[in-house]
Amino acid sequence: MAFRARLKVRFGDIDHAGIVYYPRFVHYFHVALEEFFAGALGRPYHRFLDEDRVGLPTVHLEIDFSSPLRFGDEIAIEVQVLDVGRSSVRWRYTVFKADGTLAAEAQIVTVALDMDRFATTPVPQWLRSALEGYRTAGV
Amino acid sequence: MAFRARLKVRFGDIDHAGIVYYPRFVHYFHVALEEFFAGALGRPYHRFLDEDRVGLPTVHLEIDFSSPLRFGDEIAIEVQVLDVGRSSVRWRYTVFKADGTLAAEAQIVTVALDMDRFATTPVPQWLRSALEGYRTAGV
Amino acid sequence: MAFRARLKVRFGDIDHAGIVYYPRFVHYFHVALEEFFAGALGRPYHRFLDEDRVGLPTVHLEIDFSSPLRFGDEIAIEVQVLDVGRSSVRWRYTVFKADGTLAAEAQIVTVALDMDRFATTPVPQWLRSALEGYRTAGV
Amino acid sequence: MAFRARLKVRFGDIDHAGIVYYPRFVHYFHVALEEFFAGALGRPYHRFLDEDRVGLPTVHLEIDFSSPLRFGDEIAIEVQVLDVGRSSVRWRYTVFKADGTLAAEAQIVTVALDMDRFATTPVPQWLRSALEGYRTAGV
Repeated sequence: MAFRARLKVRFGDIDHAGIVYYPRFVHYFHVALEEFFAGALGRPYHRFLDEDRVGLPTVHLEIDFSSPLRFGDEIAIEVQVLDVGRSSVRWRYTVFKADGTLAAEAQIVTVALDMDRFATTPVPQWLRSALEGYRTAGV
Repeated sequence: MAFRARLKVRFGDIDHAGIVYYPRFVHYFHVALEEFFAGALGRPYHRFLDEDRVGLPTVHLEIDFSSPLRFGDEIAIEVQVLDVGRSSVRWRYTVFKADGTLAAEAQIVTVALDMDRFATTPVPQWLRSALEGYRTAGV
Repeated sequence: MAFRARLKVRFGDIDHAGIVYYPRFVHYFHVALEEFFAGALGRPYHRFLDEDRVGLPTVHLEIDFSSPLRFGDEIAIEVQVLDVGRSSVRWRYTVFKADGTLAAEAQIVTVALDMDRFATTPVPQWLRSALEGYRTAGV
Repeated sequence: MAFRARLKVRFGDIDHAGIVYYPRFVHYFHVALEEFFAGALGRPYHRFLDEDRVGLPTVHLEIDFSSPLRFGDEIAIEVQVLDVGRSSVRWRYTVFKADGTLAAEAQIVTVALDMDRFATTPVPQWLRSALEGYRTAGV
């Protein structure tokens, strides 16, 4: 299964070069993660954080940028799970423009963090099971 | 006395119209407040928040924009105190370009907030005294 | 008629005090304007800017903040037109939480700007007519 | 030679987890690049862009996050040049906290872009020479 978050490039996302300021892509990835929790897993990320007290900070990030985005672009961000370790999850985010053009592709490794102790914790069992459904054959 | 925070307009502050995205001005004002606490009051805002457990959320804001800012502009933000009430402070922020041109002028009302109870609290005495030195005759 | 843009408060919108960083409200208002152009006027703002070459920079802004927003809040921003002058438009933006609580209320004055000359220009006739439908009796 | 840009973590850089929102690191890297152009190369980035009409968009990015940053942290970002190709530059950015702790390390590949044609162009000779002085033995 693949999940796609749909976003619009906003007026304020643009930089002095007239294209999306590239740090905004990383913000888009986080928004896509939030949409994935709510839309795919059925558990909003803020409940996961505030009630389960588990966070998913990023420890590693790799992005390849293929095509710039411009104000007014409507984009789809595909969220896939590449690997689930004991306390880490490796994700792939792929950004497509409305015409199907690849804009960027990212791999992000997050670790499950106990928000009260700020220490690594195992990926909760319900999350591990749920992520299986969005796992892809890999890169 | 007047305090001036010095900032640079960044590549990512620019919007699709080629000028500073106007919500960034409000961020600049907050940065100027942080600089004012550290540079004028000698007490970094994060210590005030985390140790004294008092915050200064904004309840009212008015801005007049006079001249757009562009990437590379070096600006000065003058921070003045217009009025100190029991639990509120009224500030004036004036943004100047390097050549002295007025870019924007704002009045901001903040209330002192007990961060543990998230309730209004009197302006701490040390802060009230310190702010007196930056008080201006007013508008 | 009233137009409402629906937004979600994002993880990254939160500040050190645990609530929405207040400059983000101003970004929300711009996003609401973009939604208003696309959803109410049927002309995406990027086309208005890039094809008609008219922009709507803000020259005056007033906000009253009533209630803080938190991560996960789903908000509605009502966009109303208070007044249309020769080259200016006065807007009202009202932010409501899902339970109907008022979070903030703003008045914003924009001027129509010829993007090629960066000079004030009359509000285009089609826009003037279209805005009439969203005009409210006023404050 | 090594160049270090000095930045302060701002109130608004913090996310719902109480640490710097990780997309902000990428913004910090861009600010460090701007400081590098002005402070190390003696040619502000906005002049390079607007007068030479050459930009340096990022095509690849890798970051390892080691330690979270908090509001009030004063950080140094070391900017190094790893490799200069015909039209690409590979940079290393290393983020240190005030006590010397490593916070993050990144490799970023930028390509020189003719801003008028939006097409790849050779790295200008003056820039190639200037970057040599900041080249490091590598990873």
